Order: sequence, then structure tokens, then C-alpha cells
Amino acid sequence: MEALGRQILVEFYNCDKSVLQNKKEIEEAMVDACIIGKATVVTHTFHEFSPFGVSGVVVIAESHVAIHTWPEYGYAAVDIFTCGDTINPWDLFNHLKVKLGSSHFSNMELKRGLFETNGERIPHKIEDDKNISTTPTHTDTFNTALHEDDCDLEEKLA
Amino acid sequence: MEALGRQILVEFYNCDKSVLQNKKEIEEAMVDACIIGKATVVTHTFHEFSPFGVSGVVVIAESHVAIHTWPEYGYAAVDIFTCGDTINPWDLFNHLKVKLGSSHFSNMELKRGLFETNGERIPHKIEDDKNISTTPTHTDTFNTALHEDDCDLEEKLA
Repeated sequence: MEALGRQILVEFYNCDKSVLQNKKEIEEAMVDACIIGKATVVTHTFHEFSPFGVSGVVVIAESHVAIHTWPEYGYAAVDIFTCGDTINPWDLFNHLKVKLGSSHFSNMELKRGLFETNGERIPHKIEDDKNISTTPTHTDTFNTALHEDDCDLEEKLA
Repeated sequence: MEALGRQILVEFYNCDKSVLQNKKEIEEAMVDACIIGKATVVTHTFHEFSPFGVSGVVVIAESHVAIHTWPEYGYAAVDIFTCGDTINPWDLFNHLKVKLGSSHFSNMELKRGLFETNGERIPHKIEDDKNISTTPTHTDTFNTALHEDDCDLEEKLA
């Protein structure tokens, strides 16, 4: 079973609220995360909402990274969707964790676009002028892994 | 336990390949889905890749909707992330399912930003000049529900 993409869904709790309401800092953190993770940035768009909260997406050649912040709850939802072997989405995650100042978070990794391939790799991008005559058999299940990590277990238990 | 947002992750298989490689049609389908679903479109950005494949995101005031298409596999990954009570993300899903011509799909619904609130609703947006003195207690689990739907069971079983 081979997947076209990997997606990490992250719940960043106990973040630095001043960062979460600062569009410029969020945008920089997101774009820098992509660059550090060796993603190819295609475009990015970020918006600040009233009274506060930032939403933004970086479209990368390898899919996208999205964020929504709720400064009033110290919370940010982050999705990191990548394809190909050149990017490790956890590099992006690590950068954002530090920049958002999150002292507690949970995450889930999913495989997207699962196909039966009889053991062969499924290319996420095929070459020009080539085509695939037979579509590999898709599967109906999401392949997920739940993780939970604590920067500060004492805080969690307090 | 109350959530700030809902997210539907969809695997659209057996789509119309000519639609999946048409940036204009994908962009129209995505924006129309948001309008039909009564979301407030903030901005949208779509890109076509070589040799084919479209990636795009619609940022809505209520979060975002993203798509990545692989025409060579007849497959599209769609994420519908909404907050608030005015939008039913399944309305967006239904529109996209038809427009992409998907005869088979699977999906997963998650709750994002879960907080313990002692039974009270957690507002996804608080009013100007108000603040929350005590942050509700977050939870560490994603709340997920897996669904599988078949337009054409015979095709699946073939």
C-alpha cells in the first residue's frame, strides 16, 4: 500500500498569545518553516480577523501548510500536507512549535491517497509525456497514527 | 467537551480526470462550494502543476477549504475546515463530490480545538473588547469519526 501524501494535523495549545495575534510573526513562522523544511513555496496568503485571530495558508509545490489561531484560547490548529520524499513534515512542525511557543500539543499523522501497488512505489508526480494506463487500486481507509507529546507534563497535570 | 472547529478530510477517487486537470473548473467548484455552503470567502489561490495536477485553497472567514488533484490517478484530496454554526461542511462536500464526478470516496470528520467547558458552548469568535480571563482546559485527543460512502458499490467490488 503506497500513499501519495502525508498529512500532520496539530493542535498547538498553551501558545504565546502575543504571537498568535500577530499576523506578521505567524506568516514569517509559516514561510520559514517551509523553507527550513525544503519545501518549494508557491504562494502564501494570511489574514487577521477582528477582534483577533490569524488564518493563513502557504501553498507549496508539495501541497500546503495551513494555520488558524485563536489567541483568546492560546490555541492554533495547524495542518501540514506534503507529498514526495524530499520533505519531512516534522521539520516544519518543529519550527512552528518553537515559534508559537506551544508548551503542549497533540498531533495526528495521516496518509492521503492510498493505493494498492503490489509493492511498487507510487510516484506523486509523473514525468511529462508519460501516463499511467492503469490506475492503481485505491483503498478506503485512512491510515492514521495518533501521537501525543508533552513539553511540560507538570503543566498538563496541574 | 466543546470544539472550536470541524474538519472533513475527503479522499475522492474515480473522479473525472478532465476536471481534475482543469484549474478553472477546480477553482470554480471550490469557490461555488463555499458560496453554496454560506461561507464567507476571504481569498483563494489555485495553481496548476506540470505535467498536470491542481492545488488550491479558499481561505474563508470560517477557516479554509483545500484541494490537491492527481488527474493521473483520478484522485483528489480535499480538506474542509470550518468553525461556527452557520456552515455545514457537508454542503461543501456534496457540491464538490458532484463537480469532481467522484464515483467513490471515503471521508473522516474531526473536531479541532477541543476544550473542557463544563457544558457551556465555547464561542469560536468572541466580541470586541471582551476577553476570556481563564482559558478552558484543553483535551489531548482528536475526536474523529470515519465514514465510508459508496456511490457505486459494484464498481468497488469489481
